[in-house]
Amino acid sequence: MNYTYKLTTRYTDTAQDGIIHHSSYIIYLEEARIYFLKNFGIDINEYEQNKMLAPVTELSIKYLKPLRSLQEISVVVSVKEFTKVRFYLDYTIYNNEQIVTKATSSHCFLNEFFKPIALPKLLYSKLTEIGL
Amino acid sequence: MNYTYKLTTRYTDTAQDGIIHHSSYIIYLEEARIYFLKNFGIDINEYEQNKMLAPVTELSIKYLKPLRSLQEISVVVSVKEFTKVRFYLDYTIYNNEQIVTKATSSHCFLNEFFKPIALPKLLYSKLTEIGL
Amino acid sequence: MNYTYKLTTRYTDTAQDGIIHHSSYIIYLEEARIYFLKNFGIDINEYEQNKMLAPVTELSIKYLKPLRSLQEISVVVSVKEFTKVRFYLDYTIYNNEQIVTKATSSHCFLNEFFKPIALPKLLYSKLTEIGL
Amino acid sequence: MNYTYKLTTRYTDTAQDGIIHHSSYIIYLEEARIYFLKNFGIDINEYEQNKMLAPVTELSIKYLKPLRSLQEISVVVSVKEFTKVRFYLDYTIYNNEQIVTKATSSHCFLNEFFKPIALPKLLYSKLTEIGL
Repeated sequence: MNYTYKLTTRYTDTAQDGIIHHSSYIIYLEEARIYFLKNFGIDINEYEQNKMLAPVTELSIKYLKPLRSLQEISVVVSVKEFTKVRFYLDYTIYNNEQIVTKATSSHCFLNEFFKPIALPKLLYSKLTEIGL
Repeated sequence: MNYTYKLTTRYTDTAQDGIIHHSSYIIYLEEARIYFLKNFGIDINEYEQNKMLAPVTELSIKYLKPLRSLQEISVVVSVKEFTKVRFYLDYTIYNNEQIVTKATSSHCFLNEFFKPIALPKLLYSKLTEIGL
Repeated sequence: MNYTYKLTTRYTDTAQDGIIHHSSYIIYLEEARIYFLKNFGIDINEYEQNKMLAPVTELSIKYLKPLRSLQEISVVVSVKEFTKVRFYLDYTIYNNEQIVTKATSSHCFLNEFFKPIALPKLLYSKLTEIGL
Repeated sequence: MNYTYKLTTRYTDTAQDGIIHHSSYIIYLEEARIYFLKNFGIDINEYEQNKMLAPVTELSIKYLKPLRSLQEISVVVSVKEFTKVRFYLDYTIYNNEQIVTKATSSHCFLNEFFKPIALPKLLYSKLTEIGL
């Protein structure tokens, strides 16, 4: 199941070469991920208030086409895989119909002492529900 | 008493117009401020671990000359004024001998419930010692 | 005449003290300014393609209340003043009905050699039309 | 041949979870890469002035340990591989003696019309000289 998050690239996301800086895409992926999870009732702020963290453990991204400022793009997110302790998301960024970026992220959960813990039950059951 | 913090502007701090983005200067001021305070034994991380915050309450900045990436600049910081509950810093950014930016910031201290508290004693006595 | 730009604060805009970092507000002001101008047919990207820059020359901001991540805020922009060579904007940021920030920015126009030039005619006539 | 770039993590690089945000590492890698190349006489600004771009085409990063603000870290860069049109770099980030991050980036060269071109001769000969 795919989730589409739309955003407009920002002026400040560019660098002196005139295109969107490669680090800005990482922010776009995070924005899309947060709303993807929110859409399934998973609120990252709530987890953090409960002293759980869900850090990025791996990130892999292919920059296929450049982006410019103030372009409306779509970040399509889907679940790639998940286990009791880790989940993996796939992302495709589109500029109009054109694929500009492909990415994958991996995430775990940590308690306040930075020790790995199982995925929260709600998240796990949502991931099962969303399927691949 | 002045404190000079040196840094090299970063590629990522630029925007598509080819110069350092105006928001990046705010980061340079913060870096200079943190090391200015550290130099007097004031460690912002320690305050935060003790549930105190020292937010910026006002910021005023004049951009006089553009900066480009990978330029070595100096941020000169000094205490402008302070009271029992607030302190004000002055900044001048130099590119070689040329003044490129003038700025002022204002800061207070908050407890964990975001209520204003007095400046920590060590800071207050250091500010008195540093003088204006 | 006021223009209201709505946005949701981003996770990445926070810092370790748990609130939106003061430099992130500068980005919010820029976003609001770009859409404010766009709303009047002024496209910053077009000016830059024509080798004109409209840098921020002064910025002044009061942080009245903290913001947290994923809060929906409104940035209300209005023209404060303008001359043949410079324009000044006023900003108020609201979180629900509460004013969280007040700011002012000043802008000029530069040619590709970084020499000041008059405001573009269209912008000047729009500013006249918008009034104060 | 390895190149070591030292930097101190910045306050602004953190997020509300108290640790350095995963997007900030991408900036650290870029900083290290720029100085790695500079060390061999390759100046990214000079290439861009000559209308050549060297974008990141792929990035892969493993976050092994969290980082906090104001920590002194080392980014060790080495050439992983290169061809006539592309080069790959490896990075290891150390916090004291501990490995906190492993990453790889891939880069090509583009002309001003965003068409791929061969690596500049100086870079190619330097890469050959540096070896793997």
